[in-house]
Amino acid sequence: MIKELIQILHLGIKEKKSDGVCIKLPDDSCIGIISTRNKFPAIPIIINKQHLLKSEIKYMFINSGNANACTGELGMKNARSYIKKLSEKLRCAPDSILIFSTGIIGQQLPLKKMISSIDKCGFQFKSSIRAASKAIMTTDRYEKWVVKKFKISGKEIEIRGLCKGAGMIEPDMATMLAFIFVDINVNKTIIKRLLKSCADESFNKISVDGDMSTNDSVALVATGSNSIDLTNKKNYHIVEQNIQNVFKQLAHMIVSDGEGATKVCKISITKAHTLTQAKEACYSIANSNLFKTALFGEDANWGRIVARLGSLSKVRYTPKDVVLKINGITVFMKGVPTNQSNSYKLNSSMKNFNIDVEICLNSGKFDASMFTSDLSRKYVQINSKYTT
Amino acid sequence: MIKELIQILHLGIKEKKSDGVCIKLPDDSCIGIISTRNKFPAIPIIINKQHLLKSEIKYMFINSGNANACTGELGMKNARSYIKKLSEKLRCAPDSILIFSTGIIGQQLPLKKMISSIDKCGFQFKSSIRAASKAIMTTDRYEKWVVKKFKISGKEIEIRGLCKGAGMIEPDMATMLAFIFVDINVNKTIIKRLLKSCADESFNKISVDGDMSTNDSVALVATGSNSIDLTNKKNYHIVEQNIQNVFKQLAHMIVSDGEGATKVCKISITKAHTLTQAKEACYSIANSNLFKTALFGEDANWGRIVARLGSLSKVRYTPKDVVLKINGITVFMKGVPTNQSNSYKLNSSMKNFNIDVEICLNSGKFDASMFTSDLSRKYVQINSKYTT
Repeated sequence: MIKELIQILHLGIKEKKSDGVCIKLPDDSCIGIISTRNKFPAIPIIINKQHLLKSEIKYMFINSGNANACTGELGMKNARSYIKKLSEKLRCAPDSILIFSTGIIGQQLPLKKMISSIDKCGFQFKSSIRAASKAIMTTDRYEKWVVKKFKISGKEIEIRGLCKGAGMIEPDMATMLAFIFVDINVNKTIIKRLLKSCADESFNKISVDGDMSTNDSVALVATGSNSIDLTNKKNYHIVEQNIQNVFKQLAHMIVSDGEGATKVCKISITKAHTLTQAKEACYSIANSNLFKTALFGEDANWGRIVARLGSLSKVRYTPKDVVLKINGITVFMKGVPTNQSNSYKLNSSMKNFNIDVEICLNSGKFDASMFTSDLSRKYVQINSKYTT
Repeated sequence: MIKELIQILHLGIKEKKSDGVCIKLPDDSCIGIISTRNKFPAIPIIINKQHLLKSEIKYMFINSGNANACTGELGMKNARSYIKKLSEKLRCAPDSILIFSTGIIGQQLPLKKMISSIDKCGFQFKSSIRAASKAIMTTDRYEKWVVKKFKISGKEIEIRGLCKGAGMIEPDMATMLAFIFVDINVNKTIIKRLLKSCADESFNKISVDGDMSTNDSVALVATGSNSIDLTNKKNYHIVEQNIQNVFKQLAHMIVSDGEGATKVCKISITKAHTLTQAKEACYSIANSNLFKTALFGEDANWGRIVARLGSLSKVRYTPKDVVLKINGITVFMKGVPTNQSNSYKLNSSMKNFNIDVEICLNSGKFDASMFTSDLSRKYVQINSKYTT
């Protein structure tokens, strides 16, 4: 059983809603974190870097409703203040606490309310992962969490993950926060390696709107208790696959709940000349508004895909060799649409929630894929009304 | 007076609407063309390249409603057929005709109807530039044309321009077609130089949705009649400025009529480290859906601009040196919002049609600017219903 313990708080950032989560990590936990590379990092990103260097981490503290980003010296002072209060209540060193914030940019935290809430909290650590995932939501429509178990070397291992997403979803992290716990005993080197490979196959392969936020972080925590020989390649592979699956499930939930999303589309580029080119083509189509609105309109608009692909000057291929499939149906090849390109079968398949676009460039041996959501009227409505 | 002569046609591509324009160029006209670099160029793009090499151009023939793109060998055969019919009617060599198409991708032209319409047409060349700009519209809401006169060396020079835009607007040309005529006598070298500098300052600085289409072309035609000494630098400058202004007006009309646009925003990056970086930052902000929806919502959302800027790994600057102004009001500097960032004055100014965003990076001496439209519910509605 995972030993991480959860406490929900009402910090007073959101009116009448839970907006704080404190997670107590078991002793000997090992933590890996990937954070946004945005040049205007939020205060928590700056503070965590310092704390991760200095100390063993005992607590993670998350607030929603306020990103504490672009808040300058006062934002830093406020963060230090509530960390100090937390450290007093939890009887630990301030730098053994990591903090995470998500929500509006450029507003100061309601520090007095937060300090008062922390002060009054009993910290019994009896909340559920579901309650925690609810408390970190911003424009998310539903809570996102996964619990999975698997067996290895006769031991039952548990993986628990929670995350929030919605807007500013983008490879290399977004407004997204994700926390994944696995009850095995691993060292820092391995946790970093696992985190990187799992994030590359999940959170770095999704895009809702092509923006990278100031606050994005994903943390993988090994909470000890089970010792598995990970120098054994087979064991490592099993552990990695299982963690990766949880990462993928969480990432898929984020795209499915992309702001205003009514569809999730997997875009695959196959047989590209280089991996970079495969990724660039995926990314570019995933972020084409013309393609994304066609998705919303349930229109198998291969023309917009082809036009977008054609506009990528750095992606090498022979136009007449390109084969485009939508939902498994070949719609374009040899430079022209096929007679399936406007078929009943194809058009009906566009009503599915999951859409599959596969473009074979036939110019090399590299493949890449990415998940994206559609661009709906609701997306516009949400983002023209909500101040980030 | 400009000597170009216009004939409107009903080709039968659109039901009951004009969808064809034939423009007769005066003898000794000199023509420059910039076309899309999309790797799936439409048939007219391929044909025009051949004709421009071979022959003196006497006619330009434009159809709307069908792009003749991704139509393969049959598309090419169809184009050759209607060009042949045109050449017979107009008594000229087939390769003295340039063709332009805009509209749906991947469908064959209704050749029989077209041939019959061309055959029946009297070709009196008495239509107006306004009627021509109306006939080439696709999802455009209004016709786009400009007539300007200026005096130089005691002569009155006229510039006439028409264009169509709406979707797939993007630097390096889009679904856009633009035709500009100036009644001076210049050679090929000069027309190319004028075209490049004017397009760089206009059509290459606008973006509606970040897509480059298969058909985009802009043509500048010097129709002769007035001889101006353009080796004189001052003269050249005056002519260039006047033509450039017409280009800019046309480009501005395209953004203003961007699909679903309710705002036009000028984005300026100043004091960038390099010109490439200035352009990249402009382009990236101009294409941020979060920024574009905030524009639509009349929300002075500096946070989304800062977050987008921060995500650009290749743009060099010191975050605390960045100064962001919206509609002339400084909203962000030294890493934090100013006390003007949520002022009544700022918020009221967001109701204007024209919005101005200026980001000073303070890291060099290079400036760039670009026009973009907002992302509205209407954009989504148009593009989820209209098959390109």
